[in-house]
Amino acid sequence: MSYTLGELAELTNAELRGDPSRSISAIATLNNAGPNQLSFFTNSRYRQELLNTTAEAVVISYQEVDASPVDALVVDNPRAIYAQIAKLLYPEPQASAGCHPSATVSDDATIDPTASIGANCFIDRGASIGAGVQIGPGSVISKGVVVGAASRLVANVTLCDGVCIGERVLLHPGVVIGGDGFGLANNNGVWEKVPQIGSVTVGDDVEIGANTTVDRGALEDTVIEEGVKLDNLIQVAHNAHIGAHTAIAACTGIAGSAKIGKRCTIAGAAVVVGHIEIVDDVHISCMSVVTKSIRHPGSYSSGSPLQESGEWRKNAVRMKQLDAMARKIKALEDR
Amino acid sequence: MSYTLGELAELTNAELRGDPSRSISAIATLNNAGPNQLSFFTNSRYRQELLNTTAEAVVISYQEVDASPVDALVVDNPRAIYAQIAKLLYPEPQASAGCHPSATVSDDATIDPTASIGANCFIDRGASIGAGVQIGPGSVISKGVVVGAASRLVANVTLCDGVCIGERVLLHPGVVIGGDGFGLANNNGVWEKVPQIGSVTVGDDVEIGANTTVDRGALEDTVIEEGVKLDNLIQVAHNAHIGAHTAIAACTGIAGSAKIGKRCTIAGAAVVVGHIEIVDDVHISCMSVVTKSIRHPGSYSSGSPLQESGEWRKNAVRMKQLDAMARKIKALEDR
Amino acid sequence: MSYTLGELAELTNAELRGDPSRSISAIATLNNAGPNQLSFFTNSRYRQELLNTTAEAVVISYQEVDASPVDALVVDNPRAIYAQIAKLLYPEPQASAGCHPSATVSDDATIDPTASIGANCFIDRGASIGAGVQIGPGSVISKGVVVGAASRLVANVTLCDGVCIGERVLLHPGVVIGGDGFGLANNNGVWEKVPQIGSVTVGDDVEIGANTTVDRGALEDTVIEEGVKLDNLIQVAHNAHIGAHTAIAACTGIAGSAKIGKRCTIAGAAVVVGHIEIVDDVHISCMSVVTKSIRHPGSYSSGSPLQESGEWRKNAVRMKQLDAMARKIKALEDR
Repeated sequence: MSYTLGELAELTNAELRGDPSRSISAIATLNNAGPNQLSFFTNSRYRQELLNTTAEAVVISYQEVDASPVDALVVDNPRAIYAQIAKLLYPEPQASAGCHPSATVSDDATIDPTASIGANCFIDRGASIGAGVQIGPGSVISKGVVVGAASRLVANVTLCDGVCIGERVLLHPGVVIGGDGFGLANNNGVWEKVPQIGSVTVGDDVEIGANTTVDRGALEDTVIEEGVKLDNLIQVAHNAHIGAHTAIAACTGIAGSAKIGKRCTIAGAAVVVGHIEIVDDVHISCMSVVTKSIRHPGSYSSGSPLQESGEWRKNAVRMKQLDAMARKIKALEDR
Repeated sequence: MSYTLGELAELTNAELRGDPSRSISAIATLNNAGPNQLSFFTNSRYRQELLNTTAEAVVISYQEVDASPVDALVVDNPRAIYAQIAKLLYPEPQASAGCHPSATVSDDATIDPTASIGANCFIDRGASIGAGVQIGPGSVISKGVVVGAASRLVANVTLCDGVCIGERVLLHPGVVIGGDGFGLANNNGVWEKVPQIGSVTVGDDVEIGANTTVDRGALEDTVIEEGVKLDNLIQVAHNAHIGAHTAIAACTGIAGSAKIGKRCTIAGAAVVVGHIEIVDDVHISCMSVVTKSIRHPGSYSSGSPLQESGEWRKNAVRMKQLDAMARKIKALEDR
Repeated sequence: MSYTLGELAELTNAELRGDPSRSISAIATLNNAGPNQLSFFTNSRYRQELLNTTAEAVVISYQEVDASPVDALVVDNPRAIYAQIAKLLYPEPQASAGCHPSATVSDDATIDPTASIGANCFIDRGASIGAGVQIGPGSVISKGVVVGAASRLVANVTLCDGVCIGERVLLHPGVVIGGDGFGLANNNGVWEKVPQIGSVTVGDDVEIGANTTVDRGALEDTVIEEGVKLDNLIQVAHNAHIGAHTAIAACTGIAGSAKIGKRCTIAGAAVVVGHIEIVDDVHISCMSVVTKSIRHPGSYSSGSPLQESGEWRKNAVRMKQLDAMARKIKALEDR
């Protein structure tokens, strides 16, 4: 796969500064790019690498283009254009249509003839697999599951009974969607299971990272709206609702019935507790815990800063004395 | 599946306020329940929904029943009774007995004739699968594993050599039980593996959520007592011991040789460090870290509250100065 | 498997204090060891158990040997020697060579004749499986993957396209290596996927715990150097680089392009944010968050200590007033 710089400029509406006949066949970092390789400048941290780059050309913003030592595709949003060009140069491999002989497909499942069902997959009764869907090896598609057109389950994905997956959804290995929510009733010290009879709805263009889990709802569905991006090892509990185009980084936990708005970002290892609401356009920093509803867009954080361990121990002891310290200050002021 | 309100009252020892002939065939939320649908009131947060409900009837406590606009099953513990009725109306699907033709079962494994072994399962030598057990597709049951009667492995579960699972245990997709504990010996800067020759014992009526991992013991077994409920993406390290009827929410890590009492609750994303002991009836709040043994029942927390990020940055800097601040207060007081 | 105490002393260069003809056939804890069982003393927490042990013999340090009530193998590093003896007494089971009939192996994959491919595995085109490799049941080996000699994938492991695994690597169930990194470009409020065209390189003698995920690089490879030990449920993001002989405990997240030095230890549930660098020989305590580069070897911590929840709430409120408190102290001092 190879394009000229001129073709790429036209395909991406970029302003070309340089020779349109240059041939581009790969993408590489500023440091490592050489002949026929395109690079991009999106993070000022790497300015020195830009100045020294030997890339064939770079994708760069109007503000920065003058610093480029090589030809350039100039755009407003270099990272988005880089993404588009990468998709052109590295198209997703398409598995061939049909069911692998080692797959087990229920007689009454509906498999579009253009779908690909991989080795050792199991497709249970009533499942419906759309056009161009790729189900990777070892995946389990339970009763009544719907997978929309052009979605891809990479491998060893488990979809539990009745979950509904949109179109162009990408599920990485080990993802589990529709496991039972953690619904328990305490009956004289013994936990009784509360059947989880809701399901999960995953919108179009969602991506879910490796080993992430999304539980089915207790009564109604857990909902992941269109365009949501979930990283690896995230827990989404029953009846959570994640608004469109929200992105959540790895190791985060979203508790039951939490409602998260649209276009939010949640950094890694954060927690959103149950039964609260976060409005649109909220940004949560890494390892923060959200224990109350957030009513206003903005950035929010919690946590304490890293210190040399000896220092930390001395200061941590004081964290247990903060209220006393505050009262002492008050008393001193009153004097 | 359908019951009259009178039948449900009798089956659950509830006091019926209303018409015993009403037919109940489903459960729904207060907001959405309509004819023939039962709802329940267990969380005062949803009082307005109760007042407006159009459910056929509700399950409710004696204290709250007067607020119900519809017929009611009145009980001491509405959530527990809701759980029981949900099990009546939504019985677990029972897979048909026998081994799926695509499953591989070792000749000397013992499979009860009433057990169900799903597609693409592998059952290794010496394994013993009890009556009514359901092993979902893609599961791996290693050498010498014992699975007690009526347990269910939903799909893609891995049980490593020799682990012992009780009766009526429910293991969700992606669960791994009996992986090697993280046992290392440092030998001049190089980590040497310490063989993990213990196993895992899981008691009766345990439920373990999707992608949770329970490691085998170093010498003796990791133990999960009866009735323990583990949510998704939890790590239980080697030789941890979790007491009966303890419930642990998602993303929590229990380190090696930690001993947790009975009837504890640990909220999400918490950490219990290794080699400590927590007595019975302890409650740990979300994202707390337990670094010392807890000798007294009660509720415990750590962590810092969420703030607008700019505010947080100003305050976080001071967390590194707490000891100095405390000393200054002391000096001021001494003056 | 059984050795005399004399043989074990010779094999491990230990000083034998006692009868070389004693027969050792198992290892057990100080508490439980009996005839023919060896125990070891490595943690002063268990001194009372040493004094009461009925083990056939113990492995112990020169400093502590005088306290031993039984025969002893005396060494500098009892834990390392214990590891070596455990490997002698409990050798890893070796699966028999060849492909299980239920496995699917691509015609142009290269499988060493001494390798073992388990039930329901899928080995895709161009994969190369080295001598003595054991691929456990349900594993998926994608296109072009290389697995070095004597490595073992326990079960249900997924290796995505082109990842390169060293020799003697041990991958526990549910591990996913080479899933797409979380690469997104925001284009007017919609996330566009950035193709992840790097891969993953895993060095020799690496061990990776159950359900841990290691993402492929965006352009270049994610790198895990030789001897690294990763526990369960860890996330390693795209282009992270983990130095040789570093050990990381469970539930930790390593963000994108983080570079961690050699011989570091990171305790459980910690976070290392993206694009920072940690030098060699750094130790991070549990649930700490590393938000800046660490330039000096040493121990680092963050977090707040556990308190009774009522106390915690009073103190936590003050965490939002720390800057104000510091200013008040300053004002009082100025007076």
